[in-house]
Amino acid sequence: MKVSNYRESDSVEEIKGVLRREVITADDGAPHFTMRVFEVEPDSSTPSHSHAFEHEVFILTGRGVVVGEQGAVPIGKDSVVFVPPDETHCFVNTGNEPLRFICVIPLQKE
Amino acid sequence: MKVSNYRESDSVEEIKGVLRREVITADDGAPHFTMRVFEVEPDSSTPSHSHAFEHEVFILTGRGVVVGEQGAVPIGKDSVVFVPPDETHCFVNTGNEPLRFICVIPLQKE
Repeated sequence: MKVSNYRESDSVEEIKGVLRREVITADDGAPHFTMRVFEVEPDSSTPSHSHAFEHEVFILTGRGVVVGEQGAVPIGKDSVVFVPPDETHCFVNTGNEPLRFICVIPLQKE
Repeated sequence: MKVSNYRESDSVEEIKGVLRREVITADDGAPHFTMRVFEVEPDSSTPSHSHAFEHEVFILTGRGVVVGEQGAVPIGKDSVVFVPPDETHCFVNTGNEPLRFICVIPLQKE
């Protein structure tokens, strides 16, 4: 068993205004999926993209929209988002505090 | 894409003091794993048990301990817990408010 605080995991900022932490990974022994925590700063967004794997998302703090193929849908604390494989999507912070969310994806085989 | 509030999902109370909501499931098209949200009332606990699948857990609110094979470890808001396959475990609320957490598991084949 591994117990930690998510802030103990290293953060990376590959995209300006978007911090990503990988909090449960294959390195911990996870056999099937990876838990990540994102923080999107106000006026920032994850890139609009698509990929062959799904997202299972839970919004922890903040306000924003998730933009999918049906348009923009408001999200906030306690929202749940399922992004199916191959759907183009992005998460946009439209509020004044970080938009923080959990995003679980299948392990990526290298 | 599916967007909801986790409270819109039906809750079940199979164990007294433990509410479970399945917020992303195979019925939504999820191909690999299920996201659930648990609420454990003060002085309540999930049962101590083990199973062949892992848990990936994020604590949303409350205080408690997770009891694994190494003993009891304190948990609270923003804690992350990885329970590997086959490790006996339970989540105990030791505080005064609900211990609320996300728990992701692989899809269970029927």
